Amino acid sequence: MARIAVTDGMAKDAVALLEKSGHEVQLGFIEPEDLLAGALKEFDAIIVRSATKLPREVLANSGTRLKVIGRAGVGVDNIDIVAAAELNIPVVNAPRASTQSVIELTIGHLLGSLRHIPRADRGMREGKWEKKAMKGTELFGKDLGLIGFGRIAQGVGSIAKQLGMKVHTYDPYLPAKVARAQNTVLHKNVDTLFQNCTHISIHCNFSEETHHLVNAERLNLMPGKSRDGIPCGNHIVNCARGGIIDEDALLSALQSGQLASAALDVFEQEPVPPEYQLVQHPHFHGTPHIGAATLEAQARVGKDIGLAVMAVLGGKRAETTVNSHLLK
Amino acid sequence: MARIAVTDGMAKDAVALLEKSGHEVQLGFIEPEDLLAGALKEFDAIIVRSATKLPREVLANSGTRLKVIGRAGVGVDNIDIVAAAELNIPVVNAPRASTQSVIELTIGHLLGSLRHIPRADRGMREGKWEKKAMKGTELFGKDLGLIGFGRIAQGVGSIAKQLGMKVHTYDPYLPAKVARAQNTVLHKNVDTLFQNCTHISIHCNFSEETHHLVNAERLNLMPGKSRDGIPCGNHIVNCARGGIIDEDALLSALQSGQLASAALDVFEQEPVPPEYQLVQHPHFHGTPHIGAATLEAQARVGKDIGLAVMAVLGGKRAETTVNSHLLK
Repeated sequence: MARIAVTDGMAKDAVALLEKSGHEVQLGFIEPEDLLAGALKEFDAIIVRSATKLPREVLANSGTRLKVIGRAGVGVDNIDIVAAAELNIPVVNAPRASTQSVIELTIGHLLGSLRHIPRADRGMREGKWEKKAMKGTELFGKDLGLIGFGRIAQGVGSIAKQLGMKVHTYDPYLPAKVARAQNTVLHKNVDTLFQNCTHISIHCNFSEETHHLVNAERLNLMPGKSRDGIPCGNHIVNCARGGIIDEDALLSALQSGQLASAALDVFEQEPVPPEYQLVQHPHFHGTPHIGAATLEAQARVGKDIGLAVMAVLGGKRAETTVNSHLLK
Repeated sequence: MARIAVTDGMAKDAVALLEKSGHEVQLGFIEPEDLLAGALKEFDAIIVRSATKLPREVLANSGTRLKVIGRAGVGVDNIDIVAAAELNIPVVNAPRASTQSVIELTIGHLLGSLRHIPRADRGMREGKWEKKAMKGTELFGKDLGLIGFGRIAQGVGSIAKQLGMKVHTYDPYLPAKVARAQNTVLHKNVDTLFQNCTHISIHCNFSEETHHLVNAERLNLMPGKSRDGIPCGNHIVNCARGGIIDEDALLSALQSGQLASAALDVFEQEPVPPEYQLVQHPHFHGTPHIGAATLEAQARVGKDIGLAVMAVLGGKRAETTVNSHLLK
């Protein structure tokens, strides 16, 4: 039976699942200096979220017992997956656990922007009844551009279609037939997506390629009017990763009116810097990176990563191994 | 050609439609004392929203020229439709124009509550990064109760099903087959709907029968946990009419924790009284009766009411005549 370090917390049911399977679970954060000093030598597996960092130096000093690294979530920016592969350690994650939660937050942010929900609520708390200032627009009949068309974007697209939107997609990594099967307008160039969409939602990974993909030039391409002539303005939502949007350009576009609204769950710097101007703009609203912060997603992520880690410990290859292409 | 008074404003395109059809439109509010003094004697038709009141005394003093009253919207609380019928004046409204807008606001309020969007945004504006305090729950897998199952509720229900919710309905005025055709659980008693639903949205008219239909006893019936055991809490949304919810009971339920959230677009008193305690509760958020306040709904309502008024002026009966059962 294996010893498993769980360093960034885990849902109780998931810990119970590991223990019922006969494994020994050690819960608790391990300080970076202890990791560097070889604290992982005593473990067969480690399960982290984002707080624990596993760079090359830590992995190099973890002995030969460590057989698998689990990331309870999606992004593996905090783990050197190349160094892990060189040591023949699979890194597994749990990409499906938060899908529904992020889909719902995205739709919530879109509607919150279009109908001024956070701004109207602020007004009410200040004793105002600003009915006329809160005139909004419908999602129905508008063009929604999805940048990246993986699981989350596909879910957002299906709700958007139910709401009467026309869905556009841009995803150079997905077979074109996926976008076509979902009846979306597939763009080969992200610029034409900006030209055709008054509403854009980001659903791609952060990488060098997507860094500042949403910039001043592209924001300026957005049409401001729907196909049927409604001056609905332009709207941006990002519940994916910070850094994909150039936030200086975003603020300028809000100030000039080129953007009617922006709603972000993720930011270039998290937590956002003190007195950050973007966050104070009246047509901005934000949430502190809570896309996966639901009871359901956290229960699912614990179970999914527990099963993946146990699969590897049992000598199998987990379906969600993120460095499988690098393993020998 | 007819003279038409438009007293509470109207979209330009709709005014143009009336004028192109050869009618003379007089735009501008008419003071209550002028209405009482017989200002309507010079008009064949009047089109109002909610600001202009047409009680029995005004109608009794409007001579014999007035042939139709148009309400650019749904509710006719401001018009004495019985007195109008006695004078053989049809009252027509435009009930479909705002359907999509109210559906979208309802979904926006639901998701805003579940994911703490207005509260999280307030925190960010205060320079906080309250990721842990903003843990939410998904709509997926939960039971949504719709009180009233007309056009708007049916639209909300179809989005909710797309989001993975189970939909319950209560509507004593609708043929049961409508609820069944939409694959919802139809309740004959509103109490069993409260017992089975963690999420409830109001979509009925205001009447003596529905006054304080949502009261302390019924709020206490709500289960707090979803069918699969998630402690998601109880949630109420009202984008229909004020007065259906007992707001004192609502505030008490928020204070006790029996309700995890409440989101209202309509209130017992509008505008809400100064320093209204409900509006300040951290798990409340509100909008100032903006269900129909979209560019699209206002364009549609002007066109719909213009066509209905012109139908009556042309000697036809409009489909949306609200006092047809009272007319001779």
